[in-house]
Amino acid sequence: MLIIGELINGMYTQIQEAISKKDKKIIHKVAKSQLENGADALDVNIGPASLNQIDDMKWLIEAVCEVTDKPISIDSPKPKIIEEVLPLVKNKIIINSTDAQDEKLDILLPLAKKYNARIIALTMDKKQGVPRDRYVRSELAAKIVSKALEAGLNIEDLYLDPIVLPVNVVQPQAIEVLESIKEFKLLSDPPPKTVVGLSNVSQGSKLRSLINRIFVVMAISMGLDGAILDPLDRDLMDAVITAELIMNKNIYCDSYLSAYRKK
Amino acid sequence: MLIIGELINGMYTQIQEAISKKDKKIIHKVAKSQLENGADALDVNIGPASLNQIDDMKWLIEAVCEVTDKPISIDSPKPKIIEEVLPLVKNKIIINSTDAQDEKLDILLPLAKKYNARIIALTMDKKQGVPRDRYVRSELAAKIVSKALEAGLNIEDLYLDPIVLPVNVVQPQAIEVLESIKEFKLLSDPPPKTVVGLSNVSQGSKLRSLINRIFVVMAISMGLDGAILDPLDRDLMDAVITAELIMNKNIYCDSYLSAYRKK
Repeated sequence: MLIIGELINGMYTQIQEAISKKDKKIIHKVAKSQLENGADALDVNIGPASLNQIDDMKWLIEAVCEVTDKPISIDSPKPKIIEEVLPLVKNKIIINSTDAQDEKLDILLPLAKKYNARIIALTMDKKQGVPRDRYVRSELAAKIVSKALEAGLNIEDLYLDPIVLPVNVVQPQAIEVLESIKEFKLLSDPPPKTVVGLSNVSQGSKLRSLINRIFVVMAISMGLDGAILDPLDRDLMDAVITAELIMNKNIYCDSYLSAYRKK
Repeated sequence: MLIIGELINGMYTQIQEAISKKDKKIIHKVAKSQLENGADALDVNIGPASLNQIDDMKWLIEAVCEVTDKPISIDSPKPKIIEEVLPLVKNKIIINSTDAQDEKLDILLPLAKKYNARIIALTMDKKQGVPRDRYVRSELAAKIVSKALEAGLNIEDLYLDPIVLPVNVVQPQAIEVLESIKEFKLLSDPPPKTVVGLSNVSQGSKLRSLINRIFVVMAISMGLDGAILDPLDRDLMDAVITAELIMNKNIYCDSYLSAYRKK
């Protein structure tokens, strides 16, 4: 499974401070610790407080790329920012994200094609907002798949995100998301990939780590291909590794945990 | 979910010694500790070493029933033993188990009907042995469902067991079992129930508790209705409670773990 480390995000105080002080040391440290703990790619998000968004994103990505050649997930709700920084990134790229609105898809899908990037697509749009059930999610996912094929994308570079919501607020949504992961796989052959922003499931809950890992294990049993998560959460990573073992994707040996941790 | 405590089993040394010494204190203690930790029912198995199987089973069940009126799972591969002890048990009963062979079904289904008992049915028979995939499992499950309906059983009293195998020996079987749990639900309307003997998945593995809880969480996401497991494994029980939360069967509150532990 594609593990995208979530910790380079301006919504965390130390990252926000590092951005405002242009302190690369902290960025390097957080980037490296995620990679050492099993991240396959790093999400990069300047957070909501930035006043010079394009400059901050350029600086932040540059800082991260100084310590890794692993893929970078350029995380911004603004297509303009993504467009500006794309040409500067030498690493492989994950565009994070488009949604199902034409005005985003029409800009970002051609960019994904041009830069040979993977792209995360949230199954929401302005009209529907966050979908109320699996059916609306699949309807929006079908539109995205169709547009991606039209744009000439390799469909396996498309990661559909059914939008995980906090279980303490909208508890019945968790099943809708799990079923969506399964249903999205039926939209094309070969199927699109699926990804979740995991931490959102436990937003505002007390037992965040437990809820995160139980949810991701269930999602993996539905066929999940990737997750944006905290790779420093050892219990979570062990749960992911063991779930992939049960799904016959990791090979059993008595020391499978340490073997797969060391990747 | 129906949690059947697995610890009253003659394969454990202390239980075997208690049986041979007719020491009820140990049986009482193990029974009570399982109930205090969330067991809804207790499995009772004399183990392989017993020389007076019927007498030992009668004694063991009597000892357990002295401390609880919760359901008893009478666990024996021999229909004769089950038949002998059934009339003596005042608690609700789970017959554990039949398989798909006519000679077992023809004895045990009518007994389940007569004693208003639930019954666990392993989807195996002499010819096929333990099934190699989900299709053979479903074929045998269909036969069992059909025979159960013929015998006049309430189909919701039937717990189909797809037979969990050790992941360290036959790793690809785990997915077959998970898919079977889902597929069994399509065999009738209302659907039959499903149950697993959980610990078998980690038999011979080093990280037993971790593998057990990841597997049961996946099985719950497939719709599992019950499991025979060790309720003293706190991490396992917390995983089950949280999985039921995600499936919208437990209600979220910040203290949901302690709330559902206390049942």
